Amino acid sequence: MAKSKFEYVKQFEQDDKLLSNCWIVVRIDGRAFHKFTDAYKFEKPNDERALRLMNHAAMAVLKDCPDVVIAYGQSDEYSFILRRDTDLYKRRSSKITSYITSLFTANYVHAWPQFLYTPLSRLPCFDGRCVCYPTDENVKDYLSWRQADCHVNNLYNTCFWNLVKQGKSHTEATARLAHTNSESKKNELLFQEFKTNYNTLPEIFRRGSIILWKNSLLEIQAASAAAAATALPSQQRMKLTRQLTVIHESVIPDKFWREYPGIVPS
Amino acid sequence: MAKSKFEYVKQFEQDDKLLSNCWIVVRIDGRAFHKFTDAYKFEKPNDERALRLMNHAAMAVLKDCPDVVIAYGQSDEYSFILRRDTDLYKRRSSKITSYITSLFTANYVHAWPQFLYTPLSRLPCFDGRCVCYPTDENVKDYLSWRQADCHVNNLYNTCFWNLVKQGKSHTEATARLAHTNSESKKNELLFQEFKTNYNTLPEIFRRGSIILWKNSLLEIQAASAAAAATALPSQQRMKLTRQLTVIHESVIPDKFWREYPGIVPS
Amino acid sequence: MAKSKFEYVKQFEQDDKLLSNCWIVVRIDGRAFHKFTDAYKFEKPNDERALRLMNHAAMAVLKDCPDVVIAYGQSDEYSFILRRDTDLYKRRSSKITSYITSLFTANYVHAWPQFLYTPLSRLPCFDGRCVCYPTDENVKDYLSWRQADCHVNNLYNTCFWNLVKQGKSHTEATARLAHTNSESKKNELLFQEFKTNYNTLPEIFRRGSIILWKNSLLEIQAASAAAAATALPSQQRMKLTRQLTVIHESVIPDKFWREYPGIVPS
Amino acid sequence: MAKSKFEYVKQFEQDDKLLSNCWIVVRIDGRAFHKFTDAYKFEKPNDERALRLMNHAAMAVLKDCPDVVIAYGQSDEYSFILRRDTDLYKRRSSKITSYITSLFTANYVHAWPQFLYTPLSRLPCFDGRCVCYPTDENVKDYLSWRQADCHVNNLYNTCFWNLVKQGKSHTEATARLAHTNSESKKNELLFQEFKTNYNTLPEIFRRGSIILWKNSLLEIQAASAAAAATALPSQQRMKLTRQLTVIHESVIPDKFWREYPGIVPS
Ligand SMILES: Nc1nc2c(ncn2[C@H]2C[C@H](O)[C@@H](COP(=O)(O)OP(=O)(O)OP(=O)(O)O)O2)c(=O)[nH]1
Ligand SMILES: Nc1nc2c(ncn2[C@H]2C[C@H](O)[C@@H](COP(=O)(O)OP(=O)(O)OP(=O)(O)O)O2)c(=O)[nH]1
Ligand SMILES: Nc1nc2c(ncn2[C@H]2C[C@H](O)[C@@H](COP(=O)(O)OP(=O)(O)OP(=O)(O)O)O2)c(=O)[nH]1
Ligand SMILES: Nc1nc2c(ncn2[C@H]2C[C@H](O)[C@@H](COP(=O)(O)OP(=O)(O)OP(=O)(O)O)O2)c(=O)[nH]1
Ligand SMILES: O=P(O)(O)OP(=O)(O)OP(=O)(O)O
Ligand SMILES: O=P(O)(O)OP(=O)(O)OP(=O)(O)O
Ligand SMILES: O=P(O)(O)OP(=O)(O)OP(=O)(O)O
Ligand SMILES: O=P(O)(O)OP(=O)(O)OP(=O)(O)O
Ligand SMILES: [Mg+2]
Ligand SMILES: [Mg+2]
Ligand SMILES: [Mg+2]
Ligand SMILES: [Mg+2]
Ligand SMILES: [Mg+2]
Ligand SMILES: [Mg+2]
Ligand SMILES: [Mg+2]
Ligand SMILES: [Mg+2]
Ligand SMILES: [Mg+2]
Ligand SMILES: [Mg+2]
Ligand SMILES: [Mg+2]
Ligand SMILES: [Mg+2]
Repeated sequence: MAKSKFEYVKQFEQDDKLLSNCWIVVRIDGRAFHKFTDAYKFEKPNDERALRLMNHAAMAVLKDCPDVVIAYGQSDEYSFILRRDTDLYKRRSSKITSYITSLFTANYVHAWPQFLYTPLSRLPCFDGRCVCYPTDENVKDYLSWRQADCHVNNLYNTCFWNLVKQGKSHTEATARLAHTNSESKKNELLFQEFKTNYNTLPEIFRRGSIILWKNSLLEIQAASAAAAATALPSQQRMKLTRQLTVIHESVIPDKFWREYPGIVPS
Repeated sequence: MAKSKFEYVKQFEQDDKLLSNCWIVVRIDGRAFHKFTDAYKFEKPNDERALRLMNHAAMAVLKDCPDVVIAYGQSDEYSFILRRDTDLYKRRSSKITSYITSLFTANYVHAWPQFLYTPLSRLPCFDGRCVCYPTDENVKDYLSWRQADCHVNNLYNTCFWNLVKQGKSHTEATARLAHTNSESKKNELLFQEFKTNYNTLPEIFRRGSIILWKNSLLEIQAASAAAAATALPSQQRMKLTRQLTVIHESVIPDKFWREYPGIVPS
Repeated sequence: MAKSKFEYVKQFEQDDKLLSNCWIVVRIDGRAFHKFTDAYKFEKPNDERALRLMNHAAMAVLKDCPDVVIAYGQSDEYSFILRRDTDLYKRRSSKITSYITSLFTANYVHAWPQFLYTPLSRLPCFDGRCVCYPTDENVKDYLSWRQADCHVNNLYNTCFWNLVKQGKSHTEATARLAHTNSESKKNELLFQEFKTNYNTLPEIFRRGSIILWKNSLLEIQAASAAAAATALPSQQRMKLTRQLTVIHESVIPDKFWREYPGIVPS
Repeated sequence: MAKSKFEYVKQFEQDDKLLSNCWIVVRIDGRAFHKFTDAYKFEKPNDERALRLMNHAAMAVLKDCPDVVIAYGQSDEYSFILRRDTDLYKRRSSKITSYITSLFTANYVHAWPQFLYTPLSRLPCFDGRCVCYPTDENVKDYLSWRQADCHVNNLYNTCFWNLVKQGKSHTEATARLAHTNSESKKNELLFQEFKTNYNTLPEIFRRGSIILWKNSLLEIQAASAAAAATALPSQQRMKLTRQLTVIHESVIPDKFWREYPGIVPS
């Protein structure tokens, strides 16, 4: 169609193509969720319904975007890892980031009533960013970083809110924890004072959630007695399918990557 | 808290601060809305309810983000203009873009049932981008560009769908319009064949929607007869308030910018 | 010609086009000139021959690159201002920066023997960078910034080296100047102790050097007595030429920009 | 020292840090060398003195910058490969590019009289750019790309200038070569018409030049008869040194990288 004399402004758009052959990580994070979680009275320090809603929204991203090979979430954040060779939006950074952030948000808002029962008035929103990682090791370390962060925060917050529920003020709880800066001291505190063995707390709290496509062999259901009668050898009655799965394992040991090969090759 | 050995991956994040002292435009656009609008049977070429939902979501952005001074929307897109001197997210491009895109999406999804009655199954999502404009003239030309685009598309689409409603196939309608590449010929076609004066069609279709804060003087309601009796001079009984307003004027003539001074100074 | 299977690596080059309609400033600066100037025993704090060599190299840049409208130099640095609408190298940042830095370096090295008599053994080199400025005011403030920096450094260095020449150690001179942090106190020190009126020192030291194309009317030399006899009215015997000129005025007052209109419009 | 009110302009500089853990390639290329080589009557298609001057300037870069592990040059260009983990200039792109381009230029201009005898009047200059490569394979492919380009151009140019020297016009030579678009046809042409076996032409023309630090064991010279008399076992009289070396091998086969391990690990 006819071009207007204003078309020239289009050229002010600057190219933001991400470096080729790098892993692309998109991390989204809830905006001002300290207030949002307060307003909706999320359980402290972890609200399982809220975490399941996050996982639900993240699964929608993996379903929509086949180039996401694995995702990791904890607290109000989620990270999506795109294949090195993805050509999604020609690797344009703002397109990729905004699309994933928007898709996640849409699903979070839409599924809210299925997970949390207070109707939404002030709406949640998320910021997003893209980061490139050149090597397989770097991208695995990225996931380890987020999971280590989950662990450190969760251990601290578990102690903190136990102290508060016990009757301490926020200042007192903070002061008390200033003296337990090692991990073992915090474990001890939980065990001694709250009869809690940290390692038995739900994995979703301690490790966060990993979403990936898990391969599995499914037995093909015989569509009819007749079909069944054809009596295929058993391996021919199986088919390989992949299922979107949420797990709570540790991504830090190599074992994880051997168990799920083909995501990030070693 | 304790730093893990994985912290190093944080430094792979690259700075994306936008140039200081430029107007920042964030444009969001519906992802694959040719399919989405089909799936939900939007009226063609314009569905007023859908446009009002867009305006609703955009107003939520202006309410949340005081640095947006004006916004312009048409079709499945919206542009938000941030003040030259905004320090929102320290001018980080991906933060600004993703936040606005996410906020818009949250409001679009959440308010959907108020505007369109089919329940949502496949969810809408939006891409976003940031563009910098160095001068006042450039940013006004940006808005003129989007509004000229609205006009050109709308005139074409109005002709096209009239022809289709008349019984023509899409191919026939396209062929017919290939011979009317001037604006006046399309106006004539509408007038001759469809008894439609293009200029009387709803402004929201022809010009899109502008959202801005309109200043207005409100008379202060006397809280009580007693207060009223204090008999202030009339100008002291007024207060200046600003109201978020949707208008459908042309932004192309200077007149517009004189009428709404203080948005983009001349 | 035939493409090799290695061609794909070309696409790893990332676009670095500078924002349209901004002033582009390229600033180059001598690499480790504290050592270089020592090695060649430059006069302290200012070596006029060295500054004239810098000006010579900068003039070569202005001659080669018509889009540079003004340049400013002091110490081991030079700034080149390119017109807002320059399309040099399609505004590619690294191309513009490296070309200007290289051209300057070539001229500096080549003309060295004309200005400084010690033969070069370790060679000088320069770093370069590009900065965009959206408004006329910003780019004028840029030049004011560099000139104010020249003044502040030069006043300090003049005091410092006078103290050192007087017999003080570097530590003593530094300590002495710690008590004179106002400008007037430094002026006083120079006047009282060294009978020096700072304002009478050479302008090239106090203000740095500005290079620009100065318009001037030249009388056309009559090629022959015959031609002269044709007796043109005097204004027709003049022609407008522009001459590359080095000046040492202050760029801070508006007066400067009125005197040289057409460089940065007001 | 005192900050001026103009300091704010410093913040318009935009961060251009290159992605961590990537190979950084800086490629410089002579500006308009089709004219420059004409002006100085370089031999066609290859002027060995000019290539040796390029190598000389490149060696100065490797001597100055220890993070350059290998360099490759041909025609009017040179590529410098910096270690993945270099922290040179905090990986700031424009700093790295301009420094290397400037250093190369300084050495090229300064050493000119040692290699080419016409005094310089118009000066040579170079553009530069930075490119990041995430994997070892990518950076090896980069070098293979430049070397394959050298070969293809050189074979073509050798044919072209032989035809011209034979008396053909440029147009005729171009036309003749349009029919020999395979490599073997060009080899045949050289052999049949010019009795030239392409593979016997100098390697510097056919393959370009590689510069690297070659390890070698040097026998320690006994400083005195007395020292010699101490009679160290022979391996203790050797020391490992590294020598900057220019070679003309093919970088395409793996063999090369096995022969020079430790540059780009496999
Ligand atoms: N009560 C409760 N709070 C949670 C839960 N998950 C996250 N939060 C809260 C704790 C933190 O205040 C906040 C996440 O911290 P962030 O560092 O992301 O900060 P915030 O979102 O407030 O600000 P931001 O916009 O991200 O800079 O969300 C939960 O399950 N229960
Ligand atoms: N029927 C109907 N369609 C509309 C209306 N507003 C927008 N659309 C459709 C028409 C276009 O197919 C589409 C907008 O075009 P775009 O260029 O944004 O393309 P689309 O969103 O399909 O793909 P994209 O992801 O933006 O590249 O949305 C409306 O009010 N009614
Ligand atoms: N003696 C003498 N020294 C000068 C003259 N002009 C500049 N210099 C010296 C003084 C400073 O040590 C140096 C310029 O300071 P810079 O901040 O540019 O630092 P430098 O070049 O050493 O390091 P850099 O690579 O720029 O970070 O050059 C001069 O005319 N005479
Ligand atoms: N006669 C001769 N010419 C050479 C030699 N080495 C390079 N050249 C010339 C051939 C080409 O015209 C030119 C290099 O081509 P480029 O693609 O770099 O183009 P040029 O430098 O002219 O323009 P540019 O500024 O790089 O875009 O240099 C040589 O050894 N002998
Ligand atoms: O958001 P935080 O606090 O986890 O830390 P960050 O992501 O490094 O900070 P920012 O969101 O400002 O990039
Ligand atoms: O999205 P369009 O078709 O209006 O055009 P564009 O925005 O220029 O294209 P893109 O979304 O690919 O930047
Ligand atoms: O080079 P300086 O010290 O004048 O200061 P700078 O230019 O701001 O520092 P850098 O060269 O590191 O950008
Ligand atoms: O310079 P050329 O022609 O070898 O090709 P290029 O480097 O890809 O082009 P440019 O210098 O314009 O980036
Ligand atoms: Mg954050
Ligand atoms: Mg948050
Ligand atoms: Mg968070
Ligand atoms: Mg688009
Ligand atoms: Mg769209
Ligand atoms: Mg659209
Ligand atoms: Mg510096
Ligand atoms: Mg310096
Ligand atoms: Mg300096
Ligand atoms: Mg080139
Ligand atoms: Mg060249
Ligand atoms: Mg070249």
